[in-house]
Amino acid sequence: MNITEALNWRYATKRMNGHKIPTEKLNRILDAARLAPSSYGLQPYSVLVIEDEALREKISAVAYNQPQIMEASHLLVFAAMDSVDTHFVEEFIDLTALERGISADSMEDYKNTIIGAVNSFATNEERFHWAAKQAYISLGTTIAAAAAEQVDASPMEGFDPKELDILLGLKERGLRSVLLLPLGYRNTNADWLAGMKKVRWPRDKMFIRFPRASSPA
Amino acid sequence: MNITEALNWRYATKRMNGHKIPTEKLNRILDAARLAPSSYGLQPYSVLVIEDEALREKISAVAYNQPQIMEASHLLVFAAMDSVDTHFVEEFIDLTALERGISADSMEDYKNTIIGAVNSFATNEERFHWAAKQAYISLGTTIAAAAAEQVDASPMEGFDPKELDILLGLKERGLRSVLLLPLGYRNTNADWLAGMKKVRWPRDKMFIRFPRASSPA
Repeated sequence: MNITEALNWRYATKRMNGHKIPTEKLNRILDAARLAPSSYGLQPYSVLVIEDEALREKISAVAYNQPQIMEASHLLVFAAMDSVDTHFVEEFIDLTALERGISADSMEDYKNTIIGAVNSFATNEERFHWAAKQAYISLGTTIAAAAAEQVDASPMEGFDPKELDILLGLKERGLRSVLLLPLGYRNTNADWLAGMKKVRWPRDKMFIRFPRASSPA
Repeated sequence: MNITEALNWRYATKRMNGHKIPTEKLNRILDAARLAPSSYGLQPYSVLVIEDEALREKISAVAYNQPQIMEASHLLVFAAMDSVDTHFVEEFIDLTALERGISADSMEDYKNTIIGAVNSFATNEERFHWAAKQAYISLGTTIAAAAAEQVDASPMEGFDPKELDILLGLKERGLRSVLLLPLGYRNTNADWLAGMKKVRWPRDKMFIRFPRASSPA
């Protein structure tokens, strides 16, 4: 099954069956979250990997009791950094220098470019949106990897982020929750959406081509 | 090559060699952009697919003359809807009803839920950020698909969106550019980044697990 077929196979699973994802499969899916590209490669987000049932019950209560939260094998929470700062960029430069066996000093210009960029936002909220967008790229690669592994994934924005941040202690970590992603296996019998045709805008609406596709004669 | 290997293989290609992506391969990559999930399935974005060289020269001028723009096979521009409105939701409901062979009337409650959601943002800018985030998910699945097809992809936020919107006539379409994605093939000899080690935060920083992983004895 190629990736297009896998993305066609997946859908926003509303009901899951509680079966557990084998550890190696889960780790490959998490690797896809970690390998996603991001602005300057900064990866200004974390992913919470939640199996704990008691904690999931509390999360469910601030997420409209959507059943996937309890029925998933694992619940991922994507959380973006509230306020990427100079210190974080310095840490990133140190990591890059270490990994590539070069000196951090040789990256001084590049470091200053990134520091300039992360301090260029008009408001802290704009900076947070930028960090959140990077987490959304990671969601995209994670969903593609899950589909390729025939694991269901149901991205959810429907929850109370402030309450969830308190529940998970995210503020203390400089993070804010942006997305939930239950991972698991569809319960076809219970799910009204299973078997429904996938709906997407037609290609000629979604894609705008230059040069324009020539009209048929 | 599985998807994790493909994501490890890819990198933010700075120099490409101008080779053309075969049409079928390109179409599979574009399908991954179109099959990405989005909030309520609305897909509030378009993807411009640009081969036209004269147009790419103009784009290059508002994007710091980054060489991938001309050296790519195709340049994608992800553009999010500036102002998702009630009319757009109605169009989406009509499409869904048509595709699934049900009546739009039977989706009245669902339609009103979505209309309530898209009108719930405090400002139009907040609504635009939400639409842009959906486009970033699509970027993530597109990059995963490109990597699986051994096609290089280099996401870029470094351009002047206002100038680019004018150049591409996006305002008239109710769109704003959010990301560039040159697709093509790496020019390993010319690219300083080719062969450099990929840098990512260690797993124990990126992932926060509940229950916490037990410490080794």
